[in-house]
Amino acid sequence: MTRLHGLAASRGTALGRARVRLPHVQETGEKRIAASAVEQELERLHRATDAARAEMRELRSRLQGALPAEVGEFLDLHAMLLDDPELLAALDELVRGKRYSASHALRVQRDRLAQVFEGMEDAYLKSRIDDLDHVIGRIHSFLHKRATHVKGLAGEILVCENVAPSELAQLQSQGVVGIVSSGGSVLSHSAILARSLHMPLVVGASAVLNKVNDGDVMILDGGSGEIVIEPASSDLRQYRARQRELAREQRELGRLRAKPTRTLDGEEITLLANAESQDDVAQAHALGARGLGLYRTEFLFLQRNHLPDEEEQFRAYRDTVLGMSGRPVTIRTLDLGADKADRTGLVMGNEENPALGLRGVRLSLANPKVADTQLRAILRASGYGPVRILVPMVSSREEIMAVRRRLSRLAALLRNDGHEVAENIPVGAMIEVPAAAIGLECFIDQVDFLSIGTNDLVQYLLAADRNNEAVSELYSPLHPAVLRLLWQVIETARRHQTPVAVCGEIAGDAQMTAMLLALGLTEFSLHPGTLLEVRRAIREVDLTGLRAQAPQLLAARDRRGIERWINGNARD
Amino acid sequence: MTRLHGLAASRGTALGRARVRLPHVQETGEKRIAASAVEQELERLHRATDAARAEMRELRSRLQGALPAEVGEFLDLHAMLLDDPELLAALDELVRGKRYSASHALRVQRDRLAQVFEGMEDAYLKSRIDDLDHVIGRIHSFLHKRATHVKGLAGEILVCENVAPSELAQLQSQGVVGIVSSGGSVLSHSAILARSLHMPLVVGASAVLNKVNDGDVMILDGGSGEIVIEPASSDLRQYRARQRELAREQRELGRLRAKPTRTLDGEEITLLANAESQDDVAQAHALGARGLGLYRTEFLFLQRNHLPDEEEQFRAYRDTVLGMSGRPVTIRTLDLGADKADRTGLVMGNEENPALGLRGVRLSLANPKVADTQLRAILRASGYGPVRILVPMVSSREEIMAVRRRLSRLAALLRNDGHEVAENIPVGAMIEVPAAAIGLECFIDQVDFLSIGTNDLVQYLLAADRNNEAVSELYSPLHPAVLRLLWQVIETARRHQTPVAVCGEIAGDAQMTAMLLALGLTEFSLHPGTLLEVRRAIREVDLTGLRAQAPQLLAARDRRGIERWINGNARD
Repeated sequence: MTRLHGLAASRGTALGRARVRLPHVQETGEKRIAASAVEQELERLHRATDAARAEMRELRSRLQGALPAEVGEFLDLHAMLLDDPELLAALDELVRGKRYSASHALRVQRDRLAQVFEGMEDAYLKSRIDDLDHVIGRIHSFLHKRATHVKGLAGEILVCENVAPSELAQLQSQGVVGIVSSGGSVLSHSAILARSLHMPLVVGASAVLNKVNDGDVMILDGGSGEIVIEPASSDLRQYRARQRELAREQRELGRLRAKPTRTLDGEEITLLANAESQDDVAQAHALGARGLGLYRTEFLFLQRNHLPDEEEQFRAYRDTVLGMSGRPVTIRTLDLGADKADRTGLVMGNEENPALGLRGVRLSLANPKVADTQLRAILRASGYGPVRILVPMVSSREEIMAVRRRLSRLAALLRNDGHEVAENIPVGAMIEVPAAAIGLECFIDQVDFLSIGTNDLVQYLLAADRNNEAVSELYSPLHPAVLRLLWQVIETARRHQTPVAVCGEIAGDAQMTAMLLALGLTEFSLHPGTLLEVRRAIREVDLTGLRAQAPQLLAARDRRGIERWINGNARD
Repeated sequence: MTRLHGLAASRGTALGRARVRLPHVQETGEKRIAASAVEQELERLHRATDAARAEMRELRSRLQGALPAEVGEFLDLHAMLLDDPELLAALDELVRGKRYSASHALRVQRDRLAQVFEGMEDAYLKSRIDDLDHVIGRIHSFLHKRATHVKGLAGEILVCENVAPSELAQLQSQGVVGIVSSGGSVLSHSAILARSLHMPLVVGASAVLNKVNDGDVMILDGGSGEIVIEPASSDLRQYRARQRELAREQRELGRLRAKPTRTLDGEEITLLANAESQDDVAQAHALGARGLGLYRTEFLFLQRNHLPDEEEQFRAYRDTVLGMSGRPVTIRTLDLGADKADRTGLVMGNEENPALGLRGVRLSLANPKVADTQLRAILRASGYGPVRILVPMVSSREEIMAVRRRLSRLAALLRNDGHEVAENIPVGAMIEVPAAAIGLECFIDQVDFLSIGTNDLVQYLLAADRNNEAVSELYSPLHPAVLRLLWQVIETARRHQTPVAVCGEIAGDAQMTAMLLALGLTEFSLHPGTLLEVRRAIREVDLTGLRAQAPQLLAARDRRGIERWINGNARD
């Protein structure tokens, strides 16, 4: 029995055999085949490709709507790659023309494509070489299914160097019960996704690749970071106890569905949902979200070759409004940027730093026709229930006023045409550009509500790309400047009696709930999947006591100080 | 006579004939040549290439040191392209093998190279297609010298859609006396460079390409934005008067070389210089800079295949310290990032958002060997005169403490080895990451001085890449949030008695001087070429009166409000 420790990245325990994935998989098998074997090899290749495609389809339909938006995008891209006729023709040609083995053809075509990706102007596609590798890897594994491993990953614990955000959903659907990585960080994108998928994950277990062998039995505790290799009977006993405890917790969580979101000292906190699919909407409704705090509209624009017209958008927005049956729906206007895969031609693909480029409201104001179509659709949906309009990437008073001017003109035109448009639709700004947070006083009189997008705000404040592994240690909301600015925004909004929510990932992370409450936050907008956990965290705190601790929190001079505060105020 | 108005981007007047450059130059001439003409065509091509190379060399040696660092880098890249044996061989091959005309070969090779650039991992090189076009354009123009236009651009005014930062120095050396563009903005990179080159520039003159014909006589006033086409005699009289006025102004400026930098009410302001070459150092010394506020060290690392060793760095730093003869020299540690051309392998080239990636102190801490070599060299140079160490891209207390720890360990080792190392070398932080500005109180006890890098700070605060044309209207220091944060940093530093300078472009822009003084700034670090103008601006203001106007400045809610304040407090 060996015990190892890593960092607790996603709660939950797992017991299973280890599946070790070494950093670089060596290529095996023949490179060339005999002329007589060509047809058979082609058939093998096609069977494998078909199998990968079927697997992907099934996965998509099974997970549809149940996943965070980002995972959906990854899956779309995978499907697109597997359906690409050029890719398939090129593979055939390599087998037929060059007499490469299917395996070698995959490798060669992978390298060719990787080069094309590298050279792409679209920064998003360029960075998707990982996904290409994933898809090629899937075909590859079906190719060797009989030869190399008959059993799947079901019930196994993946032991690897790093896990990509794009493969988490896939691994879960294959039956992986837990993941340990030697690298990675607790606040990485992968860790955040694992938490929302409820996949137990331990990261930064640096020795794990040396200590664990393929097939070893392991116990993993994603809540403590502990790993036990070849557990003794006492470990198994403990594991079962922990499992029972987690199951009880889940049942308790279920009982919170109909409970109010109220602190121990009786303060009501508002929980809103982030949503983009009808499933999100249904879940938000069922769990008692007070409304949608962030309804994303990008899905209408992504992965298609034309822009959605007013009618199509109107129907989507109207159905969402109806789905929330009277609770407010906050529709965010288009938040595309060069970092999103877009084939509508709306977004420039050649920006050197897309995160600092033409995105959000900037893109909308630069494309008034596209913006007006969306605004008209939203205004028309406002006839069916309470709608609020949320403007992304606002950095100045000028921008919010420009949107307001468009809105009043369009509302007048629509009413003239006999459409029902609500009066005084609230218009709000995302607070994600640092200048908007710092200069909030300059335009707060022009907005009816605010929503703090901590994901981007943190990225800009720290000048650290949240998707760049090289700076993942720096990217963290637990920085004194982030907390001070959050506090300042919440305080300014309070003084001006302007409602303010946080809609970034931290709003749905129960570990951060006490901290956000201490900073004065009373509105959270989060993925419905995390709503109950956050509700429970809220119900377990005394708000007055917590707020009295705010000065200590704001006095922290480094991350360690903030972590100490969080641990000191954590529910045990 | 026609009068047009644009935006005044760089002061100075010009009288000359118009040289209109239309947005897309059509290709002319034959594509193929006869076999018998090949040798002659090759000779033409070589003569043109030689001429372009000679021109570039002459330009470099003439302008050496007199230019901002960025222009120097562009010229280095141009020279590198012209000396590239592969480029030259490929051109020969196209003429000899394919019987292309020299002109067509240039076009074909340009397109090939553009593709290679596109596919480059190094984001800096990738964006340098403009420079490639410039170099190819120069060869092209020498190729057609006799045929198309005998006269150069000397004495002419360039009328164009846009002017690239990289071609400004070249245009000036060719004798262009002024530039009008239909696009562009006053605060673009090109406009800032034009000001530091003293090249009259009017931008945003939207009608100019329609109204002006090649060869028209024009008057351009970069101080007012006025353009006169085919001027009347009264316009010429006015032009001469304005010229005399500007000449008088220049003479007056010259007299300021030995004058103190003191406001009307007797407050002493500190002017430091930004420098990287020995010429900068000499100029800074001659103009009475109180020291170097920013000595950049990247030039030792760029455009070469190996890292500079301790000895080479030591000599460069020591000579700079000696060159300032006792005035303090602030050496900034390596500030490389993926946006800089680097062939040392130190920088990752595949970051999606290099501006939010591994750069500055992050790169140094990730490469401790490289960092230590530089720190040792700086410590050794401190034996020869007062040295300060400035750390770029600091975002947290942890980073500055990590650098301090390295420094004390290295100083002890060096003293052990018998080196002379000064005691208590001041260590400062660049304030350019928003989190460092907002969270300054968290680490100010760990620094001896501060330097605000407004170029990057503004870019992060507004989430607008300063080199991205699509968001160039957004990228501006004249945003309420920028001014409030500057004020807050200066005020915090004052309370802690920590010296603070601004070292971004705005420090050297005399139009911004009053604003910075009103915000409480008492130290400016600027390119020596702009020192006298800023000194004059300082000598013309009453500091007490200006500071009394600060509340109005800080109350501005948008850019227009700030511009009104600046215009209200401008020298006339």
